[in-house]
Amino acid sequence: MDSAQLLDILGNENRRRILQLLSRRPYYVSEISEQLEVGPKAVIEHLDLLSRAGLVEFYTNNQRRKYCHIAHNIRLEVFVSPHSYEVKSEPVMIDAKERKRLRREYGSTSTLSSFSDELQRLWSLRQELTLAQQSAQAMIEELRDMCAKAIEHIASDYLEAEILQSLMKGAQTTEMLSKELGVPPYEIEKWLYRLEENRVVKKERERWYIN
Amino acid sequence: MDSAQLLDILGNENRRRILQLLSRRPYYVSEISEQLEVGPKAVIEHLDLLSRAGLVEFYTNNQRRKYCHIAHNIRLEVFVSPHSYEVKSEPVMIDAKERKRLRREYGSTSTLSSFSDELQRLWSLRQELTLAQQSAQAMIEELRDMCAKAIEHIASDYLEAEILQSLMKGAQTTEMLSKELGVPPYEIEKWLYRLEENRVVKKERERWYIN
Repeated sequence: MDSAQLLDILGNENRRRILQLLSRRPYYVSEISEQLEVGPKAVIEHLDLLSRAGLVEFYTNNQRRKYCHIAHNIRLEVFVSPHSYEVKSEPVMIDAKERKRLRREYGSTSTLSSFSDELQRLWSLRQELTLAQQSAQAMIEELRDMCAKAIEHIASDYLEAEILQSLMKGAQTTEMLSKELGVPPYEIEKWLYRLEENRVVKKERERWYIN
Repeated sequence: MDSAQLLDILGNENRRRILQLLSRRPYYVSEISEQLEVGPKAVIEHLDLLSRAGLVEFYTNNQRRKYCHIAHNIRLEVFVSPHSYEVKSEPVMIDAKERKRLRREYGSTSTLSSFSDELQRLWSLRQELTLAQQSAQAMIEELRDMCAKAIEHIASDYLEAEILQSLMKGAQTTEMLSKELGVPPYEIEKWLYRLEENRVVKKERERWYIN
């Protein structure tokens, strides 16, 4: 599932409430409708959309009741700042070896309290990683801000500044820059050659770099 | 800004495109409209919404042109899986000491290439942290799955299972459980006392724990 589709799905409050409910256990349509006080027709429409996106699946139990459950492990991350707009979504998957180890360690004899302890441990590990990631992100933002000011100082034109900003993220071909900035390649090149003359950028194997 | 508001904002494709554009540099309305091929009226409506949410701000330059820029550093994280629905959004802030250090280290004499090197380093650090976080998340999901099966085995009823699932996340009062599960407190307590008798849960200082 791509990030745009996921954001479209999560952009609706009732769909968020349905997913939240289904994260507790599988539910059938009229149960969802009752719990959330949303008409069954609307619930069915939301579930159809979620199922077309592959986010939920249905199964029928012994009593021929059709249950719906979440079918995916997905992680979505969004950064928005004066210098960044990044959206990433990816499936969260465990590797087979790790799964085997967990299954061995937490076998059928495990008590709920041993699960609970290990979950608490993993939650605080994840929280620490989140904090470290936020701190890296904060430093990236700060640097990009300083960098934007340095570029403003060098560049004589918006487009020149945008080219430099774009190259800060990594080497790019003229075509990639043209596509990203929505400007014809010849105009991009005009600036790039000027910047090359001033030794601000360099070209290697068809890619432009910050020098 | 709360997560729900942010998800509502990001649920619209044109608003996402506007934010992506503004992450390059400040733009004025007719520029946005032209670049994205979206009518100026619609652009203004989106910007109004973004500005009411505090996500963008306006300023007027010397030529009296009204520019719009992103005013926030925000990180949003969403996990969706058969056993989790977690949405967190928080401002990404650098602490004053770290900012000072960066400003000192990357002063006015820094070249673009030194910024570029440091940014590359921070990006790969962030990427490593993301991978570690995903792996912690995958283990959490796997454990919750095993735990759900163990609970299914113990619990004689959906509600009993839901109470145990909820207590796996941490100690809770009867009131918290009642609110989370949408069930009156006396019904929750009926199950809790039964579970206490079977030594699956225990009560300490008004809070229930997995035993």
